[in-house]
Amino acid sequence: MKTYLDCFPCFLRQTLQTARVATKDEVLIRKALDEVCHILTQISLDASPPEIGREVYKTINRVMGNEDLFYYIKKEHTRYMLRLYHDIKKRVKSSSDPLLSAIRLAIAGNVIDFGSNPDFDIIGIKEEIEKAFDYQFAIFDYDKLKSTLKNTDYVLYLADNAGETVMDKILIKELKKPVKYAVKGKSIINDATIEDAQDAGIHEVAEIISTGSDAPGTILKYCSKEFISIYREAKIIISKGQGNYEVLSKEDRPIFFLLKVKCPIVARDLGVKNGDIILKGQMV
Amino acid sequence: MKTYLDCFPCFLRQTLQTARVATKDEVLIRKALDEVCHILTQISLDASPPEIGREVYKTINRVMGNEDLFYYIKKEHTRYMLRLYHDIKKRVKSSSDPLLSAIRLAIAGNVIDFGSNPDFDIIGIKEEIEKAFDYQFAIFDYDKLKSTLKNTDYVLYLADNAGETVMDKILIKELKKPVKYAVKGKSIINDATIEDAQDAGIHEVAEIISTGSDAPGTILKYCSKEFISIYREAKIIISKGQGNYEVLSKEDRPIFFLLKVKCPIVARDLGVKNGDIILKGQMV
Repeated sequence: MKTYLDCFPCFLRQTLQTARVATKDEVLIRKALDEVCHILTQISLDASPPEIGREVYKTINRVMGNEDLFYYIKKEHTRYMLRLYHDIKKRVKSSSDPLLSAIRLAIAGNVIDFGSNPDFDIIGIKEEIEKAFDYQFAIFDYDKLKSTLKNTDYVLYLADNAGETVMDKILIKELKKPVKYAVKGKSIINDATIEDAQDAGIHEVAEIISTGSDAPGTILKYCSKEFISIYREAKIIISKGQGNYEVLSKEDRPIFFLLKVKCPIVARDLGVKNGDIILKGQMV
Repeated sequence: MKTYLDCFPCFLRQTLQTARVATKDEVLIRKALDEVCHILTQISLDASPPEIGREVYKTINRVMGNEDLFYYIKKEHTRYMLRLYHDIKKRVKSSSDPLLSAIRLAIAGNVIDFGSNPDFDIIGIKEEIEKAFDYQFAIFDYDKLKSTLKNTDYVLYLADNAGETVMDKILIKELKKPVKYAVKGKSIINDATIEDAQDAGIHEVAEIISTGSDAPGTILKYCSKEFISIYREAKIIISKGQGNYEVLSKEDRPIFFLLKVKCPIVARDLGVKNGDIILKGQMV
């Protein structure tokens, strides 16, 4: 997906709100805004939003002098979600379709997203989880997912945010296949890294791998050779979140996008409404 | 009121949405965004939002090659409001307190604002008008307004947007005092000019004067000498809208601000909630 002009004010909003996570120093926040304003005048609209986002967030980090602004917030979110884990897992297990319930919950976890919603309060996740059990999907390629899953030796699972990882763990168990769980190679916003995945206990249910990239989305040109070969061989890829959709929606691979739509531009691209719940199979 | 860092993304949003009123040419819209990004890196936060807004909108107009982007929209809004005029006037007249009802309706008219809400659809005004008769004020200096009104020879009325002018006409009649109705000296966003005020029939109930300024708010340093002397002599000033509040809230003059709060920053400055209805007397 290309970057739209609508993304310009949004990147500036993200800059402001992310910088405020880091500091109360208005001069420093202003500096971040000024630098991002300058970036915006230089970008190509052919780049995807996560590609611009990568530059924007690297700039914020540099100005703030902090490579991992969300470190403690990510830890807190993972801890919070782990406290809910056993109860949710039980409810998923005892539901009429545990795989589908686990998918719903994995999407619910996707609201833990500071890029699209920097005012996010982890307390709000409880309400989202209750809603999740009754999610109405705007795109629902569930049967395709089940049939693709049957004929695969492993699943490549593209992670999104820390905390959301705990819900991913429930889904991984329900996939009943070996899973390679790909996280970001370096901290970017609140996206999960290897440390975050380990905090969530993903290593107990899957092999944690790194994309090698520091973009908020799996931008292949920034990924490691090791990751790319796994990506090319995978017979099924589960892709979490908007960022991954934005960079992979034109890819010729068997990808299932699981996400909650959190911006009107992505909604338009998908032909759905902002806030909609998506399970979309590609090339399957 | 000074400009806050929160205004940065908002100015970019306004640029995008205003440019889209003018053209579908994405290259031109991008040019406007780039130029406004550059302005944002240069501005002083000590300037008020309407002062920055003035620069931003002049830039958009220049890039679009159109000095009055909202000309036809303003005409349409005024026509639409004139169709509702007689019915609303009748309801105001027959209410238990016609002056207060007229104030409520004049505030309802203030939702016709492209700066804060470029998605505004004039159809929505009907709903706002119905709500207006039951408005609960967050600040309500009505008694002060009535007593100040008693001891004045004329009222200086600072207009805001075209269309809203028609509701102002109803209030002017209820003030029962000579009124000098001050509009912008040049087109800016959908703010009323002399032509817009005449379209609304304001000349039938008041003397239309110009502030001499092209800012979206009565920034005194840009106003004409003639206007300033009227402003200095007025024993009561009725000020419509956020823009005028932003530039006059620290002025040592007997001003009554009538507005609907349309942004969280103005809400914070006033100590109220976004969306609140305000009748605030200053220096009275």
